[in-house]
Formats: sequence, C-alpha cells, structure tokens
Amino acid sequence: MKALFTFFLSLLLSLNLAAQDHSHQSARPISFPNFGAYQTLSTDLHMHTVFSDGSVWDIRVQEALMDGLDAIAMTEHLEYQPHSADIPHPDRNRAYDLALAEAKDHELLIIRGSEITRGAPIGHNNAVFIEDANKMLKEKAEDAFREAKNQGAFIFWNHPAWTAQSSKGLPVLSDFQKERIKMGELHGIEVVNYGAYAEESLALALEQDLTILATSDVHGLIEWDYSNKGLQRPVTLVFAKEKSLAALNEALKAKRTVAAYNDLLIGRQEFLEPLILNSISIHNAHYMSGTEIVELTLKNECSSDLIFENKSAYTFHESSPVFVLKAHERKTFKVKTLQKMKSFELKLEALGAFYAPSKHPVLSWEVTVKE
Amino acid sequence: MKALFTFFLSLLLSLNLAAQDHSHQSARPISFPNFGAYQTLSTDLHMHTVFSDGSVWDIRVQEALMDGLDAIAMTEHLEYQPHSADIPHPDRNRAYDLALAEAKDHELLIIRGSEITRGAPIGHNNAVFIEDANKMLKEKAEDAFREAKNQGAFIFWNHPAWTAQSSKGLPVLSDFQKERIKMGELHGIEVVNYGAYAEESLALALEQDLTILATSDVHGLIEWDYSNKGLQRPVTLVFAKEKSLAALNEALKAKRTVAAYNDLLIGRQEFLEPLILNSISIHNAHYMSGTEIVELTLKNECSSDLIFENKSAYTFHESSPVFVLKAHERKTFKVKTLQKMKSFELKLEALGAFYAPSKHPVLSWEVTVKE
Amino acid sequence: MKALFTFFLSLLLSLNLAAQDHSHQSARPISFPNFGAYQTLSTDLHMHTVFSDGSVWDIRVQEALMDGLDAIAMTEHLEYQPHSADIPHPDRNRAYDLALAEAKDHELLIIRGSEITRGAPIGHNNAVFIEDANKMLKEKAEDAFREAKNQGAFIFWNHPAWTAQSSKGLPVLSDFQKERIKMGELHGIEVVNYGAYAEESLALALEQDLTILATSDVHGLIEWDYSNKGLQRPVTLVFAKEKSLAALNEALKAKRTVAAYNDLLIGRQEFLEPLILNSISIHNAHYMSGTEIVELTLKNECSSDLIFENKSAYTFHESSPVFVLKAHERKTFKVKTLQKMKSFELKLEALGAFYAPSKHPVLSWEVTVKE
Amino acid sequence: MKALFTFFLSLLLSLNLAAQDHSHQSARPISFPNFGAYQTLSTDLHMHTVFSDGSVWDIRVQEALMDGLDAIAMTEHLEYQPHSADIPHPDRNRAYDLALAEAKDHELLIIRGSEITRGAPIGHNNAVFIEDANKMLKEKAEDAFREAKNQGAFIFWNHPAWTAQSSKGLPVLSDFQKERIKMGELHGIEVVNYGAYAEESLALALEQDLTILATSDVHGLIEWDYSNKGLQRPVTLVFAKEKSLAALNEALKAKRTVAAYNDLLIGRQEFLEPLILNSISIHNAHYMSGTEIVELTLKNECSSDLIFENKSAYTFHESSPVFVLKAHERKTFKVKTLQKMKSFELKLEALGAFYAPSKHPVLSWEVTVKE
Repeated sequence: MKALFTFFLSLLLSLNLAAQDHSHQSARPISFPNFGAYQTLSTDLHMHTVFSDGSVWDIRVQEALMDGLDAIAMTEHLEYQPHSADIPHPDRNRAYDLALAEAKDHELLIIRGSEITRGAPIGHNNAVFIEDANKMLKEKAEDAFREAKNQGAFIFWNHPAWTAQSSKGLPVLSDFQKERIKMGELHGIEVVNYGAYAEESLALALEQDLTILATSDVHGLIEWDYSNKGLQRPVTLVFAKEKSLAALNEALKAKRTVAAYNDLLIGRQEFLEPLILNSISIHNAHYMSGTEIVELTLKNECSSDLIFENKSAYTFHESSPVFVLKAHERKTFKVKTLQKMKSFELKLEALGAFYAPSKHPVLSWEVTVKE
Repeated sequence: MKALFTFFLSLLLSLNLAAQDHSHQSARPISFPNFGAYQTLSTDLHMHTVFSDGSVWDIRVQEALMDGLDAIAMTEHLEYQPHSADIPHPDRNRAYDLALAEAKDHELLIIRGSEITRGAPIGHNNAVFIEDANKMLKEKAEDAFREAKNQGAFIFWNHPAWTAQSSKGLPVLSDFQKERIKMGELHGIEVVNYGAYAEESLALALEQDLTILATSDVHGLIEWDYSNKGLQRPVTLVFAKEKSLAALNEALKAKRTVAAYNDLLIGRQEFLEPLILNSISIHNAHYMSGTEIVELTLKNECSSDLIFENKSAYTFHESSPVFVLKAHERKTFKVKTLQKMKSFELKLEALGAFYAPSKHPVLSWEVTVKE
Repeated sequence: MKALFTFFLSLLLSLNLAAQDHSHQSARPISFPNFGAYQTLSTDLHMHTVFSDGSVWDIRVQEALMDGLDAIAMTEHLEYQPHSADIPHPDRNRAYDLALAEAKDHELLIIRGSEITRGAPIGHNNAVFIEDANKMLKEKAEDAFREAKNQGAFIFWNHPAWTAQSSKGLPVLSDFQKERIKMGELHGIEVVNYGAYAEESLALALEQDLTILATSDVHGLIEWDYSNKGLQRPVTLVFAKEKSLAALNEALKAKRTVAAYNDLLIGRQEFLEPLILNSISIHNAHYMSGTEIVELTLKNECSSDLIFENKSAYTFHESSPVFVLKAHERKTFKVKTLQKMKSFELKLEALGAFYAPSKHPVLSWEVTVKE
Repeated sequence: MKALFTFFLSLLLSLNLAAQDHSHQSARPISFPNFGAYQTLSTDLHMHTVFSDGSVWDIRVQEALMDGLDAIAMTEHLEYQPHSADIPHPDRNRAYDLALAEAKDHELLIIRGSEITRGAPIGHNNAVFIEDANKMLKEKAEDAFREAKNQGAFIFWNHPAWTAQSSKGLPVLSDFQKERIKMGELHGIEVVNYGAYAEESLALALEQDLTILATSDVHGLIEWDYSNKGLQRPVTLVFAKEKSLAALNEALKAKRTVAAYNDLLIGRQEFLEPLILNSISIHNAHYMSGTEIVELTLKNECSSDLIFENKSAYTFHESSPVFVLKAHERKTFKVKTLQKMKSFELKLEALGAFYAPSKHPVLSWEVTVKE
C-alpha cells in the first residue's frame, strides 16, 4: 500500500519539482588549441560519486560542463563501497548510467570506468572504456586487470606517489606492475592526482613508456577542491583523431597526452612542444618607427598561465626576459633585432612545462615582420 | 564470499582514503548582532540530500559551516523518493543521522525534520524538531501533521507562492491550512524560498499570525544557487534565549524571527527594528572644526547590505540622503545640526527591510556628540 | 647667450622626448542616454590647474577623455593666484588655451571660463562661455559679473553650502545674489560640488529658478578624489539641441540639466523623469509557461547605479521590491499580473533621484508582453 | 593697485581653500626586508614636474608616500624647459624646494637633483645630492659634470638604451662616458627606466663597475603609468647604513643597490642574494604524519612577486617545481626528504632575478624541521 502510495506521489510531484530551476554560472572553462591532425580533448578520467566514496549523486556532468571538458570517466571504486548499507545497488555501472542520462543533451562524452582498488603494492588503478564494471569484480587483482583488458580498456595506475601507500611520496614499481605492463594490462600512470604532481611518476612514465595523465580524483566538489581556491582542476589533454570514445581510447593508448594543472604542463616532448607552439599566436610584428626594434603582440590561446624565459638570439627592449602570459592574455613585446629583417626566430623556454624531470621545452616561432 | 571480501577491503581502505584531505575555504559567513535578552541564530530549516531528491550525500554540514550558520534542519521529502531504486533505505531519519555524525566536532546544531509533501491545496510543509520521521509517513496529510505536532514539532508551510502549485504566484489559504492553524499544527510560513520572496506570503503570515521564515530549499549546491552568483543563501534569523534546540523551537513558535536574504530583511516590527538598530554602530561623532556640522562614522555590523534614507530632522552635509552601507562597511557622514548640541536624533528609513508589504521600518539612534 | 642655448636645446630635445609614450587605460566612462530632441552631454564645468591653485599643468583633458565627458570648462580663480611667484603669466585665459591645444584631436569641447572668487556673502562664482577672462578682473565683484554677462556667459554660484563660507553648511542667499539673479547675471547653482550634495542648494535652485549643476572642482587628481575610492566624478548632464558650445550655453541657460554623482541624480522633474525612463530598457517580456507571471529583463543603460522600489499595481514574484540595478547591468524580474494581459504598467520609484528635497520621481513604463 | 588687491584676496582666500580636503587612499606600498647591517631603502631618483617637462606641480611627494618610498630625487631637466614661457623661474632648485616643503611632516627624504640633458652621445644624466642646480647650468656638458662632482653628487646615466638616442635600443659607451667614469664623474646607470629594462645596460654596469639603478622617470602620473595597469613603479633599492641623505649617497656610490620593477629584480650577486634570502621566511616545517615528507610554509616578505624553480636535492610532493609566490603571499609546500632529517637544504633558483644577463641567483635556506 505504501509503495503504491509513494509511487503515485512520485508521479504527481515529479512534474512539479522539475519546475524549480537550479541554474548556475561559471567562468572557468578549460581550453587548449588543436594542432596537426589532432583535436585536443580535455578529459578528467578519475572521479567519484555516492556509488563508491564520493559526496554527490549527480553533479559530475554539470561540473564538467562548467569546466568545458570534452570527456569524463566515471570511476567508482569497485571494491570499496562505504555507502553500501544505504546504497546496496549491485550494479557497478550505475554511476555511469546516471551520468550518461544526465549528459544526453550535451556534447560531453561519458566514459564507462571503474577503479580496481587494492592496498600496496598493487594500489589503485583505473580501467576506462570498459564494457561492464560488474565483470571486473574479482577477488584477485590480476583477474580484474585481465578482464578489463579483455573488455578493451585503457588502464592506468592512480596516484602512485600517494603517501598513504608510499610514505616517501615515491612511486615504487613492483613485480605486479611490471607484469601488468608486460601483459599489456597497464598503459598509463597519473603524474598529477588531485593537485599532487610527482616528478618521479613522470620519470617512471618515460622509463616504462606509459601514458602520462592528470586527474582530479574528485570526491567532494570541484568548487571546493579547486575553483574557490583560484585553481583549475587537473586534466589530461588527449590529442585524438576525432571527438569520439574510440578515438580517445586510441589516442590514450598511443600516449598522445599532456597532463595540465594550472600553469603546469607535463608531457612527451613530441606533444608538449606543438601544444605550446600552438598556444601562442603572434600578431602585428612591425619595426617601431626609426628603430631596429620589432614590436609584436603575443596572445596566450589556452586556459593555462604560461611562464616563459626569452632564449632568442635577440634581447627584449623593455620587458623582463622572464614573464608570465596569463590565460588568454595579450601582451606586447619589443625585440631588438639589431638590424631590419624580414623575419626572425623568437625562442622561448616554457618554464612551467616539463617533458622530463627538470627539462623545459624551448620553443621557436618564425616571426614575419610587416614591411 | 564476495561480501566478506568487500568488507575486508573496505576496512583496509578506509584508513588510507581518509588521508586524502578535501579542505576548502570561504569568505561568506552570515552574521547578525544579538539584542536584548536574545541570541540571534542564523538558521536554514529546509534542505535536501540524496535521501529524497537532493544531489548530495553529505555536504550540507560543510556548506552550513562555510556560511557561518548556527543551525540547519534536514528536511527530506517523506513521500517523494525519486532515488529509492538506488537508495531503498527505509529510515526517513537517515539524512539527519548522517548530518549529526558529520557535525559532531562543530557548534552547528542539527535539527531533525521532514517535509510532508502533497499537491495543492495541501502543498509542501516542513516539520522540524520532530522525534521520528518514519512515524510521520501517513497516507492522510492530516495524520502526518497531527503526528508531527504530537512529537513537539514546529511546522511551516513551504513556498506557498510556488508557481507549480499556484500559477499566479499567490499563496492560497485553503480550509486545510485554516484547520491546521486552528489545531496548532501549522506555525509558520516561508516568505522567502530559494530566493523567491512573496509579499502576499508576508501579508498572510501577519494576518494568520504565523512565524516568518526564509529557507534555501537547496537541492544542489549552495555554491551554484548563491555564492557563484554573488548571493547569500536565505536564512531565518531566530532570536532565541540560548543556542540550543529547545530554545530554537521555543523562539520559532513564539514568532521571534526575521527572514534575511541578501539586502532584504522581513520580520515583525518588534524584532526587525531592534535587529537593524543593533546592526548599526555609531562612532566618533564630533563637530567639524568651526562648524555646526557633526561628523560621525556608521558601521554596518551585519553581513547584509543595508539601504537607508535619511529621515532625520537634519540634512546630510555631503552624502546623498539615500545610501547603501555594505556588509561590515564603515562610512563617514556629516549631519547639519544647525546649532551645537550635546546629542541629537539620527533617523533612517531602512528601505530594504519590510515589517509588512510596502512598509519600511524607520529607526532612531540617539547620537551623543563628543565635547 | 643662455637663452639662445636653452632654445636650441629645447628644439633638439623636443622631438626626442615626444617619443616617450605615456599611455594609460581606464574603465570609468560616464554615459547617459539621449531623449526627445536632446543630446545628453556630460560636462564638468569647474576645475583648476597650476594657473590658479590646482596641482597639474595639462592633464584635465586626458582625465576628461578617460571619463568620457563631452565638455569641460577651465575655471581658474581670477583673483586667487597662489602660484603667481612661479607662474606670473598675466593672461587669465592661459589654462583654456593649453587645454584647447591638448584637445585638438578629440571630440571634447573646451569651454573658456573663470572663477570670480570672493569671500562671503559673494562667495565663488563661475562664469563659463566667456570671451576673455582678463576683462573680468575687476575690483568690484558686480563689475566682474556684468562683464561676464556682457560676454554672453552662463554664470553660476559655486558650493554655496561650503563650510568655509557657511559654518552651518547652508546656502545663504544675500542681497548680492538676489541682485545678480534679477540682473540676469546669475543663472545657476552647484547642488553638488566635489562630492558634497546640499539639499538646501536644490531647494534654492527651485525657489530662485536657477540651473542645477554638479561639478568636480578638481584641484588635484580625479583618480585620487574619485576613481581610487570607487567613485565617479560629479557631472552636469546637459540636454542640448546638439553637441556644440552654443547649444550647451543655450541649454544651460534654459535649465535643461540633471546633476549626477554616482547613484545620486538631481534635477527638475521634467528632465529627471525622461532621463531615467530612457536609462532603462525592457527586454523579452513574456508569460512564464503555465503561469500568469511575466518574466522580463531590465537593463540599466547609464553609468550610474539606479536604486528602485516597485510601485506597480503588481508585485514581483521573486525579487525584493527594492533593488539596485548597477551601471549597465541586466537583471531579470518576474511580475505577477494576476491574469494574462497584452501589456501592463511597470511603475518604479527612483530612490536615488530627487526632483526636490525628499521627492523621488516615480516612473512608468508600458510593458508589451510577447504573445 | 591690482597687485595689492590680488594679494589681499590671496590672503583672505588661502584659509578658506585650505579647508577643502583632498584626501586619497592606496594599497600599493613597496617594501623589502633589511638585511645584514643595512636598511633597505626604496628610492625613485628620477622624476619631473612643471619645472621642466612634467605635467604636475606638487604631487610627487604624495605619490611617493602612497608608494611607501623612503626617498625621492627631484631631477628637472636643467636645459630643457618647455614651460619657460609660463614658468620663467630662474631657480633650477625650485621643484626641490617645493617638494621639501610638502614633505616636511613626513619621513620621506627629498634629494636635490638635476638632469643634465644633451643629445647623443652624451645623452641624459642625473646628478643627485647636489647643492645648487643653478651652478650646473653650463654650456659644456663636461663642465656640468665637473660641477656636480664638486658638489658631492652621485651621477648616473639615464636610459642609455632609449630608442630616441639609440635606434637599436642598445647603450653605446662613448669616449664621453669613458672619460666621465675615469674622472669619477659618472657612478651609475639606469638598467630600468620607465618600465624599460635593457640587459645590455646591466652588462655595461658590470663591465664598467657602475651602480645599478631603476627609476620611473615619471612626467605624468604614477597612476597612469603604473598603478592603473596593475604595475608598480620602478625603484632602486639602496642598502644604506641608516636612513639619511648622507648614508644614501654613500651606499649608492658603494654600488649597494638592486633595481626592482614588479617581479624583476636586478643587482650585484652580493646584494641580490641576501635580499631574496631575507624576502622569504620559512614557517612550521614538520614531517607529515606517517611520512618522510616535510610540510613547510614559505612567506614572501616583500612587495614583488617572486618566481622560483626548485633546485633542492629533494623534489616537492605536490606543487610544481616552478612556482610564483606573490607579494606577501604564504604558500605551503611538501618536500620529500626520503628519510627523516633534523634539517635540510632548500635550494631555489629565483627566475625573475638577474645578477648578470641570463644569470639567476640560486638561494639556499637551511630548514630546521620540528621534532
């Protein structure tokens, strides 16, 4: 009787309650330029809701839309279910299903994922682009990885430098990971997790030839973890052939990524360099009247602040050789070319970017000077 | 077997995961001065979580702490349970229990409440300070109200001007409400709900001698509904004999409240006036050298912007007679008293405050001028 | 010899020094809508430079451009020349000549003026649109006024409530002013001077049928007096038949002005009302689905914050009846029209505006509701 | 007759006009820590008023107070007097005398100076701490320098890379400068002038053993040149034995300076390093529970943003190795020391600081970790 009564009420009220509009605004979209044959997709491949140990039911999609992301993966802990007394839902795909429904009128891609959750040395690992999370619920971690691989998943090691599993804050590669890598069951590694960058994780990614990732691992609110502090959420920029789940999976496995977290950009040199090259546009280069000094405007076309040091053969006329170009900012620079030239090479070291520990890329732009 | 395995893992991981700190900051605390024998308690008596139709599991306490509230009531819809397929928890007190646990190290009072949810003309009604929500789950609304009253609840009519139940946006008093009021089963009425103020609800509150309330009725995030838009959440200021659940219940039933929403303050004249009188402190009143003009500083001691018009017998020397004194702002004013006086009456109309539709309180401060 | 040498150097260096660019930016332009047959011209008719007791040589034009003004008057004290030991220039038109030269590539109108400067009861008075300031330098104030009138000047009484000349902060009309008014030698009165508004000066303007003015009377920097404090400079809005010196003079003498200082607007009802009416545009009025409630957007088309109180026959659905619409801000309002109507009257009292002491204009807009 | 009349009026009005208060506010004070036996004095040794080609009469002192400076030098062009038709004052010390009078109630030191102004190759040169500017007005530049030296002046070469005198933007050392240096008549060189930094000028300073300076060379308003653009004025930090004119002169001649312009700091290694070392304070270093990771807080004690790159033997646990510590900002860092230590060396490269072209100082702090 009560059930029927409740059902009736639900029906009655659902229309009413839907009328209450809970809109919101934001000015924090993340965006980076495309380059070459690639679309640059902003993704966050690690997050939680009430369906494992997160604090929210259904706002991950709204958060991602506010942040201008292209794709998110729902990655509940498979085995860690602290809310199970209240939410005994047996289907480990539930968070994904809800997010998919919520995103139905948007361009945002929703990726089915799951977090295989163990203590050290196995640690936490995300499998994304899976087909069914339930089938991955295995007693032995090895079996879970194998199942994920069989489902076509891209699998990565989460926060390998997490102090709860490594008191020195260092990633420790065990036989388990070595075996997974060998078996093609571990493809990537988080070098940034919830704001924490580990240089040693980057070194390991390069050494083991793993995909470089940054994720938010958000449990509470993006607002509280990042926006309210003036920070942007960590994202993995993926250079994909198109905006599709298949293309994303392909690109991730092909290691075409840059991890981005505020002014910090980390990636393989071959992707980091064109990303930054294309993040700067150069405008209106011309000789200042009566001088051998070129005036030009640099515009930062991406949503990260970029820190540069001039490494050109030519010095600047006014600005400091070290400068910050904020997200989407335009700044005018003057370059002493010593003689009038039709074009010259502007060379900047990107101090906030790393292609290896302590290694900054140095970028070159050929600047054409107006007659 | 799986159950045991999961339990074991949960145990193992819970320690680890607790180490991940999700701190946050805020600069939005709501505060109003005490006056007379009363403590002014900031309360939000209407909110939702996943245990009815809200979007969050457990962040209402954190939000309230960020907002500097003294008390919140957890008021899930009793009968409207759109998440019940996922969260079949039979205990309607569950959201309260979780919030109580979350608040255990804080001064924040958690009030057990429940929303009796029906279509028009009964509408939605909150009962707070109840003993057991489950016992209120009755087929007939009358029985739910009676049960709430028997539990000692303070009961109020939610958003009576809600367009989903009143297409003209007007509260319509039906026989149902008249009967509840007569029976002592309906004590208050929301004049502000989720940012919506209805003058007609205020008129009804005064006509029916009901307690005046403002609530957020938050389903999503306080951040998205208010803070990100530069707004404060609506609160009911309760003038209680002490900070305790019993004192709050007593004060609410005694109608000692002011509804506050940004620069809008609504309440009975006897409480609205002392609240505003005590929200202004006057400093350093003295005659400017060689003049019959008093210079003094007004400080807004509360977190709402206050809009005033000078209604003194004396005009201002420089400022406009209509002015905004922002939250916690100090401003200097000059008053032409025409002759030197030891004290004079400063009289201001509070244009953002209402003790009845279109009725602003006019406040008087006796200003003592320094020799 | 030295003179020649200096001249040579001057010539040599002038080219060089001109190359040093001292540009600057600002986001503080003052703008108000035109109405009827009039252009609304923003003017500041009272200011000083080193040629009397000001602190600057030549930046009044730049300041005015930054503020978006249409016209300024250079009004050095005729008789008060504290820098005369350093600047013995005998020509009282010098500041005007310099400003005119500086403004030559801009639309800004430069008005030749002069301040006739005496103690009480004559006080300080500006004559603008004069032909030659030098001829106004007379021992007797009466002669200076007559000369100004003969030159076609518009003449106004400066800061009549100035405490240095009236310890009560009240304007005191003496026989001198009465005579000048009678003779057509005094046309206007400052009701706002350097941020100081006197209601009694407004009363006097109305009683004596004088033009209402607001001026900055800037001696130092507009930045320090206003912008750095978040304030706008006072301006006299003049409703002129065209943008020309002659049209300005005609409009001022015809008393077609509003004094504007931040959110304070003071003027004759016949000009204040159309100014505010045209400062609000109404967009997209339509009935919210399933309701008798009109949703519409108000846009403040001027650079002053406007404070309103709803005086319509209809109440608002959500907003407070008292609200601030900031400069250029858009806000959405919901109006309960109780039944569906093709159009209705929106009536707002402009609380920051005065057409007489304590008198606010009430404005009506006929709102057409979309089908 | 007129003269007497004017004098009388001046007397009469001076009291009145003084009552008009032109106050202002600012939040831009420049401050750097003292170190060793030195007081760090912030100075601007190059500025102009109406007494040569500046735009203002008397506001340089107010500007300097708003900026928190310790000393300013009044340095009018000796020979370039474009306002001389209006201001034929024969005394080249006049701007200094006025500033001295204006500063009489403040701690700000006013330095008598003068700008010897010639075309290339001599260029513009400031002599400060002179006794009488008039005596420096010589036909031959050599004579002016000799006179300045004889008066005890500290003499420096202004904007040697100024494009109006060097179309390549390079300082060109001529026989004239070589001779002056040899004769002890040229002690310093501006490496920053009005926002323009030239690395080649720094190279020249080091090569020729000259004092390194930064000056604003302000002609208009500090507000327009810097503050309104979010910039700080350039200053020369002087490390003096006490706050006095004599000590300043001594320190400048001893080359104890750092040129500071926003996040750019330029100076000799022996002064730049202790300045930055003392600009960072380290707080609350302790091991995070259960880890070998030290958490500590860095505070920037100066008014310049500082850009650092971690060069310690230890990596950071969370932050990027490249980071900006804004003026007066505190930030928490985590350092992986790999084992528990009582103290360790924190080593940071200051990327915005230069002790030679392209050379950043690397600073070391010994951090004691709490038990």
